[in-house]
Amino acid sequence: MLLKSQVKYIQSLGHKKFRDAEGVFVAEGPKIVNELLRVNGISATDIFATGEWIKLNPELAGALSSEHLHKIEAFQLEKISGLTTPNEVLGVFNKPIFAEPLVKNRISLLLDDIQDPGNLGTIVRIADWFGIDSIFCSEHCADAFNPKVVQSSMGSIVRVNVQTRDLISFLNSNASIAVYATALEGENLFKMKPLIEAFIIIGNESKGINADLIAISRNRITIPRKGRAESLNAAVAAGIVLSRLAG
Amino acid sequence: MLLKSQVKYIQSLGHKKFRDAEGVFVAEGPKIVNELLRVNGISATDIFATGEWIKLNPELAGALSSEHLHKIEAFQLEKISGLTTPNEVLGVFNKPIFAEPLVKNRISLLLDDIQDPGNLGTIVRIADWFGIDSIFCSEHCADAFNPKVVQSSMGSIVRVNVQTRDLISFLNSNASIAVYATALEGENLFKMKPLIEAFIIIGNESKGINADLIAISRNRITIPRKGRAESLNAAVAAGIVLSRLAG
Repeated sequence: MLLKSQVKYIQSLGHKKFRDAEGVFVAEGPKIVNELLRVNGISATDIFATGEWIKLNPELAGALSSEHLHKIEAFQLEKISGLTTPNEVLGVFNKPIFAEPLVKNRISLLLDDIQDPGNLGTIVRIADWFGIDSIFCSEHCADAFNPKVVQSSMGSIVRVNVQTRDLISFLNSNASIAVYATALEGENLFKMKPLIEAFIIIGNESKGINADLIAISRNRITIPRKGRAESLNAAVAAGIVLSRLAG
Repeated sequence: MLLKSQVKYIQSLGHKKFRDAEGVFVAEGPKIVNELLRVNGISATDIFATGEWIKLNPELAGALSSEHLHKIEAFQLEKISGLTTPNEVLGVFNKPIFAEPLVKNRISLLLDDIQDPGNLGTIVRIADWFGIDSIFCSEHCADAFNPKVVQSSMGSIVRVNVQTRDLISFLNSNASIAVYATALEGENLFKMKPLIEAFIIIGNESKGINADLIAISRNRITIPRKGRAESLNAAVAAGIVLSRLAG
């Protein structure tokens, strides 16, 4: 069953304000929802699923109390889904609770105004692949629990601690840690060795890294270009940089 | 001015059948359109632009005959645009004409069912960055001139020769060239040296590379994982692999 109030509630979670107030986020599709249901410390407040999902996932469905599991029809899933092709199940989950992020003896990512949710989610997934614990986002980044970020992170959003910071004051208060800014002119990434401790800054999709931030970054790194493209996608650049420096 | 027939024509170019029949593709926004207008050998059949674009780009606008340049209002651009936020200009361009692709003494990419147009365009942009001349797509890949591929390629689609092939027969008829398949278990990419001549296969977003293709690939390569993400985005994987092997 799907109540009008539930439709309204889920739609409201498309907005950061309501996600923050409720402390929850939305994930969709069996791949991500099933994975999240198996993560220790992550709990679902509501799972809206078709009969098909319930039949295919007896263990997961069986572990949910009837209060939390709502069997709905495909046409009802369409009403609450943000996907072009709604897919069996939508879950509302409590946001993960992370310990205070650590920055010593490890690499952390700093994202300067990554505004495309797909890019942000892809970067979270890359960070999770390379064992990066924390990402610090400038205030103009997309919200980490935007549904599109959750989807493109493929569930990694509950394993990587994504925090919002004023990046300039953050760097100033962690001045002992070396800062590497990706830039069009800098040290050849392909000649660098993996790093033990660093902040690596990835810039905005079209504007790159803010001049203020560049100014306080001692090290500039460049992905050498052999062809003619003007730039690389921000998430692809993050992947290439981490594969060298955190790989 | 914008005629009803023009609106219909541009909308029809959202479909591969009509793009193929007309030999044209659509690109949007000043960044990509301006770049394409400056590429040798690429010609626009029609440019639909707001007064703002015309004012900001007097040289580009001046080089177009009045037959080809159509001044329209923002609300009219909305009618023909495929973007969420229409942006000053939409161009219809003749498809580039490429010479027969060469595969000796170079690295080429093979894409096995890359279905997301954003991923395909991002891979074309990466290939262009690393100086890859040709991409061979299986028959179930997104169409290279799908408007979303064009947009995410950022114009690289006119510089990289993207061809459709039956990949199995293609590999069989080019048996002298070493084949590298990205896989979950294979040689550690980070220990490999750049290659001089190779086919590198990137697999489908969720299914990976077809078993038939894996079977005829002598070399498997893996991006080592340090964290917990289950996989990487296909375009990010392509970027990391090319940065090592073609960088």
